Amino acid sequence: MSAEIICVGTELLLGSILNSNAQFLATELALLGISHYYQTVVGDNPSRIKQVIETAISRKEDASKQAQVLIFTGGLGPTPDDLTHETLADFFGVALIEHPEIVADITNKYAQRDRQMTPSNRKQALLPQGADVLPNESGTAPGVIWGPRPGLIIFTFPGVPSEMRQMWTKSAVPYLQSRGFGQQIIYSRTLKFWGIAESALAEKVAPFFDLSNPTVAPYASLGEVKLRVSALAPAIAQAREIVNPVEEKLKLIAGKYYFGADNDTLASVVGQLLLADRQTLSVAESCTGGGLGQMLTTVPGSSQYFLGGVISYDNQVKTSLLKVDSQDLAANGAVSAVVAKQMALGVKNLLGTTWGLSITGLAGPDGGGDNKPVGLVYIGLATENNPVKSFEFRFGATKDRALIRHLSICSALDCLRRRLLRA
Amino acid sequence: MSAEIICVGTELLLGSILNSNAQFLATELALLGISHYYQTVVGDNPSRIKQVIETAISRKEDASKQAQVLIFTGGLGPTPDDLTHETLADFFGVALIEHPEIVADITNKYAQRDRQMTPSNRKQALLPQGADVLPNESGTAPGVIWGPRPGLIIFTFPGVPSEMRQMWTKSAVPYLQSRGFGQQIIYSRTLKFWGIAESALAEKVAPFFDLSNPTVAPYASLGEVKLRVSALAPAIAQAREIVNPVEEKLKLIAGKYYFGADNDTLASVVGQLLLADRQTLSVAESCTGGGLGQMLTTVPGSSQYFLGGVISYDNQVKTSLLKVDSQDLAANGAVSAVVAKQMALGVKNLLGTTWGLSITGLAGPDGGGDNKPVGLVYIGLATENNPVKSFEFRFGATKDRALIRHLSICSALDCLRRRLLRA
Repeated sequence: MSAEIICVGTELLLGSILNSNAQFLATELALLGISHYYQTVVGDNPSRIKQVIETAISRKEDASKQAQVLIFTGGLGPTPDDLTHETLADFFGVALIEHPEIVADITNKYAQRDRQMTPSNRKQALLPQGADVLPNESGTAPGVIWGPRPGLIIFTFPGVPSEMRQMWTKSAVPYLQSRGFGQQIIYSRTLKFWGIAESALAEKVAPFFDLSNPTVAPYASLGEVKLRVSALAPAIAQAREIVNPVEEKLKLIAGKYYFGADNDTLASVVGQLLLADRQTLSVAESCTGGGLGQMLTTVPGSSQYFLGGVISYDNQVKTSLLKVDSQDLAANGAVSAVVAKQMALGVKNLLGTTWGLSITGLAGPDGGGDNKPVGLVYIGLATENNPVKSFEFRFGATKDRALIRHLSICSALDCLRRRLLRA
Repeated sequence: MSAEIICVGTELLLGSILNSNAQFLATELALLGISHYYQTVVGDNPSRIKQVIETAISRKEDASKQAQVLIFTGGLGPTPDDLTHETLADFFGVALIEHPEIVADITNKYAQRDRQMTPSNRKQALLPQGADVLPNESGTAPGVIWGPRPGLIIFTFPGVPSEMRQMWTKSAVPYLQSRGFGQQIIYSRTLKFWGIAESALAEKVAPFFDLSNPTVAPYASLGEVKLRVSALAPAIAQAREIVNPVEEKLKLIAGKYYFGADNDTLASVVGQLLLADRQTLSVAESCTGGGLGQMLTTVPGSSQYFLGGVISYDNQVKTSLLKVDSQDLAANGAVSAVVAKQMALGVKNLLGTTWGLSITGLAGPDGGGDNKPVGLVYIGLATENNPVKSFEFRFGATKDRALIRHLSICSALDCLRRRLLRA
């Protein structure tokens, strides 16, 4: 029992895009306990796609390694170079059949956007005879689940990562599980940490890396450090029993650096804490230009605690709307603890919220000096009956603008999180 | 003349890492004008690696597609599962030979870090007989350049991206050029469009897809549609001459939908137009929560035209700061053309900018109704001495919150772009 991933797309061969689909599917196959030995990328070319199918279904080295599941991504679009379904039908010697329900679905999706379906979209309703539709809720290109011969299952997905992921999770996984794949399940919890380096956390929890069930592995990206705790068990309940005690120990060791697990984000955790206390928040942003507000409002329902804020990119907006003192601004510069505090207090008073949270900093690439290098950021935090606080961060002048802004936003959220937890 | 990329590493099959090496090499091969039709990922397993080599050197479809250059990444480390050189030697029936100069180099690198070379590192000095060393300046794992049989060149690189890239650039590229590869270069321009579906644009420019030099290919992601125009020529100047006339024709056909090329974004293009007219902009955001300001400020130097804005997530902020009429708000709801217009006018007046741009909409997942479905978004655009405009978008209730917000931000920028261009 094994799967093979075949990614179709000339843009992959030209290096125009990174193959994140292969990584996503690889991770998912591992979680389902489905073996997977090969990944292939091939262009939008029928004879080369056929050659790849031929190779995949006739692996000679070991019969048990012969692909039972072929997973295709890409080549389902409306343009003439999208040929995956056509080529599969041709390879297995069946016709392409138009599915009226797909035509209706595409027409409907276009209508919702006040647009006309074009004739070329009609091509997306043609699937190999005998194949079942793998529905695509957000896009116009459906995939297929198809058993063209005994012992072989073919899945096709569009190349658009968000559509592919949704279709995989909603349709392909339940199908595979119903067919007996994934009898041993891998259950994972991803614990998330902020404000500590990966190496520092890894040293604190080093003995856990030697465990075999559950396994514990560290990851880091964009300042967030993660520990993935994975257990192999016949069912989810047993897997949870294996994971839970290890998870609790890791949280205890990490202390205030731990902020949540799995789908938790700093924004969602801050939101839960504010909601629990029936408190409200407003933001004042300079170098992040609205990114803190945007991050807070990624969370559905954030309107219950987030009222809004002021993007004070220009200094005049800082003085006029946020009542930052122009003399303090001139004396200390916009990137200073004083200004961060006055911005936080100003927005709290202006919007009448429990908390005011501000960011002012140098995101670069230009504008840094010896005293104030690129990467220097101040966070301000204001609330009633308490001194306004400021926090200084130096993210390093070698980091790029996007990363400095991202780290600023997450650090601001983490300052508020720790204050709400008194951690 | 063609190349094949073979990435060796079980971590790729587990999804632990993203295959950025394949993307880097794909881009580099395109720049050198070396054709490249397949990429394969395989685990650290000798018999499966051999199967991949066998497939690559015996592509039967077309002799001209047979690999002349095989590029391996990964499997050169010191641990027992690193088997690339061993497997290659075995496949081509030659012995592994220890290179004393590599042993000396590894010993020296360990000494620099005050460490002892371990016995397992010695394995890294073993290369297939007849292979030349491809030096690795920063790491301990050298690669090879090897012609195991006439008409076939093999390169091996470590999996560590920084080492691989350095070795590719310093050694492999000069070697390939000295052998007559890379006489032709591929030059590409990516033209970008907003407000038109991929299928509709594809139909308008369909005859261009039949060109062979330059080639024209469509892509789409997150609402943005792209046409990539690629030319093969002996040098960049000639390639530009092949691309330019096609690029101009495509722009003419696409008209107002074309907004920029290569690194241009809607935000950078709007910024250039504002700068050219010495005009300024402020924003008022509801459902995007700051994302429009954030997008505008991704552009370094945006402080020259973007002054800031108001995140009016809560209705009270709309009335108090932006002077939205509370009766209009009650009668029409926050997601309405009237409120969008008043938000745009309000922020323009509050910040004293040339333009005020607003967004109010239903990003979901909850809160939609029959009259106002999720995905309904209004953009407002205000400037002096002109009636305030509003624009209605219906992105479709099946799209997720993040995508609806992204489309709202880009559409707002596009409304302003077209107005600035009078397009």
